[in-house]
Order: sequence, then C-alpha cells, then structure tokens
Amino acid sequence: MKNCIIIQSGGPTSAINSSLAGVVKGAIEAGYSHVYGAVNGIVGVLSQNVIDITEIAKKDDSFQRRLSHTPAMYLGSCRMRMPDPKMEPAIYDALYAFFKSLDITAFFGIGGNDSMDTIAKLSAYFGSKNAGISVIGIPKTIDNDLLATDHTPGFGSAAKYVATTVREMAYDTMIYPVKSITIVEIMGRDSGWLTAASALARGNGVDAPQLIYLPEVPFSVEQCIADTRSLLKHRNSVLIAVSEGIRDSSGEYIASADAKEDKFGHKMLSGTGKAIEHILSNALGTKIRSVELNIPERCGIHLASKTDLDEAYKMGQVAVGLADKGLSGRMVVIERADASDYKPVYSSVPVQEVANGVRMVPRDYISESGNDVTEKMTDYLSPLIQGQVEIEYRDGLPDFLPIDHLMDTTR
Amino acid sequence: MKNCIIIQSGGPTSAINSSLAGVVKGAIEAGYSHVYGAVNGIVGVLSQNVIDITEIAKKDDSFQRRLSHTPAMYLGSCRMRMPDPKMEPAIYDALYAFFKSLDITAFFGIGGNDSMDTIAKLSAYFGSKNAGISVIGIPKTIDNDLLATDHTPGFGSAAKYVATTVREMAYDTMIYPVKSITIVEIMGRDSGWLTAASALARGNGVDAPQLIYLPEVPFSVEQCIADTRSLLKHRNSVLIAVSEGIRDSSGEYIASADAKEDKFGHKMLSGTGKAIEHILSNALGTKIRSVELNIPERCGIHLASKTDLDEAYKMGQVAVGLADKGLSGRMVVIERADASDYKPVYSSVPVQEVANGVRMVPRDYISESGNDVTEKMTDYLSPLIQGQVEIEYRDGLPDFLPIDHLMDTTR
Repeated sequence: MKNCIIIQSGGPTSAINSSLAGVVKGAIEAGYSHVYGAVNGIVGVLSQNVIDITEIAKKDDSFQRRLSHTPAMYLGSCRMRMPDPKMEPAIYDALYAFFKSLDITAFFGIGGNDSMDTIAKLSAYFGSKNAGISVIGIPKTIDNDLLATDHTPGFGSAAKYVATTVREMAYDTMIYPVKSITIVEIMGRDSGWLTAASALARGNGVDAPQLIYLPEVPFSVEQCIADTRSLLKHRNSVLIAVSEGIRDSSGEYIASADAKEDKFGHKMLSGTGKAIEHILSNALGTKIRSVELNIPERCGIHLASKTDLDEAYKMGQVAVGLADKGLSGRMVVIERADASDYKPVYSSVPVQEVANGVRMVPRDYISESGNDVTEKMTDYLSPLIQGQVEIEYRDGLPDFLPIDHLMDTTR
Repeated sequence: MKNCIIIQSGGPTSAINSSLAGVVKGAIEAGYSHVYGAVNGIVGVLSQNVIDITEIAKKDDSFQRRLSHTPAMYLGSCRMRMPDPKMEPAIYDALYAFFKSLDITAFFGIGGNDSMDTIAKLSAYFGSKNAGISVIGIPKTIDNDLLATDHTPGFGSAAKYVATTVREMAYDTMIYPVKSITIVEIMGRDSGWLTAASALARGNGVDAPQLIYLPEVPFSVEQCIADTRSLLKHRNSVLIAVSEGIRDSSGEYIASADAKEDKFGHKMLSGTGKAIEHILSNALGTKIRSVELNIPERCGIHLASKTDLDEAYKMGQVAVGLADKGLSGRMVVIERADASDYKPVYSSVPVQEVANGVRMVPRDYISESGNDVTEKMTDYLSPLIQGQVEIEYRDGLPDFLPIDHLMDTTR
C-alpha cells in the first residue's frame, strides 16, 4: 500500500486548488490508495489534522471538477516556517513516525518560495533517513516571482482579473467630459508582474492605463506629477496603475511616506494608491480617486484563466510522476518552448534553486522612462490569460465546494 | 419621418447599455428612421453633439448584442441639472429648434432620479408648446433607491457582483487558523440595498458576512465592537459588510469621523471601511483588513445578472411603446406580480412620482438588532441576480464595443 499527503501554503491563488485536483487525479491513476490532505499546511501535518481526499472524491463525482473551480485554498494555509532539521530533530522525527503510520511514500507541497524551503528541508531529512518518501514542490503565487519557472500557476488568473477589471474601469472613467485621474493599486510587494498585466486592458478602443509604475524602478513623485500633468493637457481621463510595492530612490515605500498616526498613536498605512491620490490631488487639483483591487485579485476565481488552471492541474499530475520515479527535493517548472507560438513544457528543478529567491521583472520589459511596460512584457503575458473557465452557478452564484473542515478549525 | 433621441445620465450601471439597446430595437421595429444618441447626456443635446445609432447598428450585425455587454455608458454621461423652463426659456427653445431640425418625435432618458427631473422639465416644456414630442424616462441605478418601481435596472448586476465577490472573499478569509476580521465596504450613500446583497453570499458552507450594517439604522461604534468581540469568542474569521453611507446617531458619516488632515491641510476621507478598520483594530487588537469594492461594483459587467440585463432591455422597448401611444412625462417601472413566484410586469408612472425622492430599505428588511438583514430582504433580492450573461471574449479579455466618440471628447 502506498499513500501520499498534500499541503497547500502561503497566500491563495485561483489555481492552487487545480494543482491539488491534479495531484489527486495523478495519484489515483498511479495507484496510491489514499491521498491525504493536511489541514492548514505543515501545521496540519504536525498536529495530525488530515482529511482523506480520496474518500471525499469517491462520494461525490463532481468533487474533482468543483475543486478546480473553488477559490482560495481547499486545505487551508499557514505561515509557519519549518526549523532546521539539525536544530530541532524531534519535530521531524514525530512527523516521520506519523507518515509511517499512514504508509506515506510521497509528500506534495503546493506553495510559494517559503513553501519550497519546507520542501527542501523535508527532502533533506527524509533523504538522510533513507525513508523512501519523495518530497515534491508545486509552485503557485499570484506574484509570479519564483525563480526557475517561466511563470507560476495562479499568476495567469490574477493577471486576467487585473486586465479585465482595469478594462471595465477604463470604460467607467471615460463617461464624463471632465478632467479626472483614476489610480489603481495592484498587488505586488517586491515584483511588478501583476501590475504589468494591467497593460493587457488596452485594446477595444481603450488606451488605459496611460501610466504603469512597477517596484523594479525607483518611483519619483516629481516624475509622476509631470507625467500626469503632461497627459492631462491632451486628454480628460488618466488611469494610472501602480504596484503596492513601489518605493522611492531611497528604498522607502510610497505608502509609508503617507502614513499618519491616529489619535491613539497607531500608524495608519493608507495604501500606495491613496498615497498617490493625495500627492497628485495636492499637486494638480484634478478630480481624483483611487481603487485598490485587493484580495479579489487572488480569490476572484470566476475570472480565472483556463490556461492557468489547466497548467496548474497538469503540474499536479507531473509532480506525482516525479515522485513515482523516486525523485525528491524537486519543484515542477514550466518552460516556454517557443517564444512566438506559446506551448508549455513541464519539467523540474532542484528546489534549492527556487527557495528564498525572487524573480524581478527584467529591465527591458519596462519602458525606458519607467512609466510603462514594453511589448516584450505584453507578448510574455498575453498567452497566460487565454481561455475562460466555466464555473458552475447555482441560484445565481458560483457553486463552490464547501470547506467545513476549515470552518471546524475556526470555531 | 419620425426620429428619436436618447440620453444616458448619472453614474454607470451594467444594465444601462441594455436599456439603450432595447430602445434602439424597439424604435427600429416601431418605424423610427433614425435613433440619435446624445454624447454626454443633456450636455450633448444642448451642444448638438449626437451620433446616429441606427447607422452604426446597420454597419455591424454584432452591435446590438455587444452594446448590451459593454460596461459603463456607451453615450457617456453628465451631471448637469436642467434649469426651470420658465426661468431660462432660451435653452429650451434652442433645444426644441434642434429637435425640429432632426424630426424628433420622442426623447428617452435613461438615468436616476436627477435624470427624471430632466424628463419632467422637458415633458412639461414640450407639452406647453404642443410639440408632439414624447418624453419618457427609463430608470437605472445600482443604488436601487428609486420610488415607484420594485427595483431598478443595474441593481441586480451590482448585487450579483457584490454577492459573488463576498462569497469568494469569504473563502479567502478562512484559510488561516487565526483570529481575523475582514471589512467589506459597499457602495450606497443613502440606502443599504446593495450592501444587503452581501447576505446572498451565504450558503455553500459559507456563513459570511456575519455582520451587515446599512445606512438606514444609526451605526453605533460600541455595538459594532461588542458584536465583533462576541463573534470572535466562537470563531476565527469575521467578515463585516458595511455601506459607505453608515452614520452615527447624530447623523455624522462614520467615514468623516475618521478623516485626518494631511500636511497641506487637505481633509483625507479614508473611507468607511478604513474608519471601521481603525476603530476595531484599536478596540480589539485582532488582525484586520478592509476591502472597498469600489467602482467595479457598477462597471463589472462580466458578472452581470442576466435577469437584470434582460429586464433593462425590455424596459427600453416598453419606453418606445409608451412614446408611440403619445404618452409623455412617464417613467417605465417594474412590478413584482407574485411575491412567491418572481415574474416582472412592466408599466409606467408619472415621472414626478420618482424625481427627487429616495426609497430606503424598510425596517422589517433589517434585523431587530440592526446588524443583519432578514429573510424578507434575501427573498426580495434573490430573483434579481439570477442567470449569467455570456460576454464575448477575444484574446482572453471581454470584447466590448469601442467608445471612440467618448474618446474624442476627452482629447
């Protein structure tokens, strides 16, 4: 009997449950008897809080399909970082005993670079014990900032959400024949990939956003004021897309520059979009508003990219294949075979190549003046948002899988 | 030869272009030779900036369908209020001369209660001149606060957007096994209809939002703190939906209570959600965030309600029928024939019954404690969000009609 266990960790993406579904499908086909899911990531493994996903899937034919179309993280998450196995071996020994009791031969972790650190540590530990347990990582992050992979599952759906919403908002900004500025704040603390996706909104007679600022280029308040003033000379509505993580040349976040203290002395971080709203309003006096897209970017699965969910699913299956070959300590990656004709190719790399690194936007994907992206960027992004997902609706609303097992832990 | 002219005004809704499409369809069938659209509402009428929609529709078979699926306002908007005809007759006389030059026999205005004031004034003026020009209003507002109609086009789509997004966010809030509060700020300055729609998110194993605050009930900071503290005793994640327009018992907006001045002395209104975030964070010390749904509520047409767009379209056709009967100064309304089996019935009322009034949420649609809605509310809301709209996609993004005629006015 061979069984496997899966965790999800880090922040949600629209594709992380598709990867889970892909692992489940792959594992059943590869002859695993039970696919266990740990509730709330590695915390669930350590507290032995697991559910048997194969049993749930057997009872409900629609489970696999609905799982792929359920937002956030079916198994829940955690932010725990595993200690060094040499420093705290007891934790690892307990975990190993638990795995042995469940006949676990493979462990799959779906997450970002913090999660890949967990994968690396577990793989090293099991290797040192000759445990016969493969440990495989499957990437996900809306930030698209993992090394060694062309892109990450979850990013394409978030990018599609951003581009669609910005296009719709562009229509909204053009209805009045008066000067106005709209600022859209998009997630991305360190890298600007997701904010760059706002450029895909262009077309259809829409030329918004007119300005795009990413964290990779130091943000100049003076230049932003000058850029906006210049645009307003020739047009009414200006739409500006900014990453939440933009910083000035001294490395200070623009959001924190605007932070005020409330009457209790608490610092109120008003957000990057609000900060720029205040700056431009004071400088230009133009009608202005800011919109923070916020967590719907990562949980708005009704706008998921079919390409993204399909790739995430496939990567789950590929992960099972790697474990079946006895490989361990590897993360599934995706390569772009041909730059002109998009075709994903799946392979894997040692997880150490990924853990704790960040992939920034290359400088030639950003315009020389630093206030837009180049065609290299839009050519890169466009294939990732293709295709729509047919979410099932019931009573006018998306019919997601219930997550009572997470509810239980919250009571 | 009989021709007609249409304006759109006020703020965008996902359904206002469907009403425009319904008028165009109805007018062509009723034998109107030309359907003119004024660009930017009554401002376009006064400046004689009109486009011939029949000509555009003739050149493009997909125009009518795509028009219904294009967000915001195809003809643009304005915030101008018409003066009293007795005070400034010259404006009306010029408008009348322009209409005569175009052989206009009917005028249609799609808008909220300000727009109905324009309809009333134009109808009175043309009546006094025996001009033979019918003036008909078609309602729209995401706020759902117009008198004399069961609901307003645009509301159902915004409600579906709110309910879907809150349901998706509820999944996002449940992934961590830690105490957390999420505040969702929803549009509605005076009435709470749209915020109430967040209650539809419940189901599917989701019980969020746990608290809902509408402007119709004075907001007590102390009660909100107590409500939240009480919930956190028994559960981890609490999701709170608030109308932007909630006020305390003295009538002051909660948002303004939190307003700070920046270093230039400008008042920074941080928003109702942010204000409550600060209040609860200071009182409870729990992990907290706030999300303002903002303008995607009104322009997020990819999540439109089919029921809403179909009704909006039908109301455009009904408006043409009223004009053809020689009626004037009336607004199309929708009645609910049978409370238990939803079926819309179309009729009309004198526009004076609507202009300048506001329909608040009845007290028995709100729970006694004022922090939730009752079943009467969800029974009322549910039929309005039924059905999905098949937006066409191109290159992974919604394929909307271009609005170059609005771009021209913005350069």
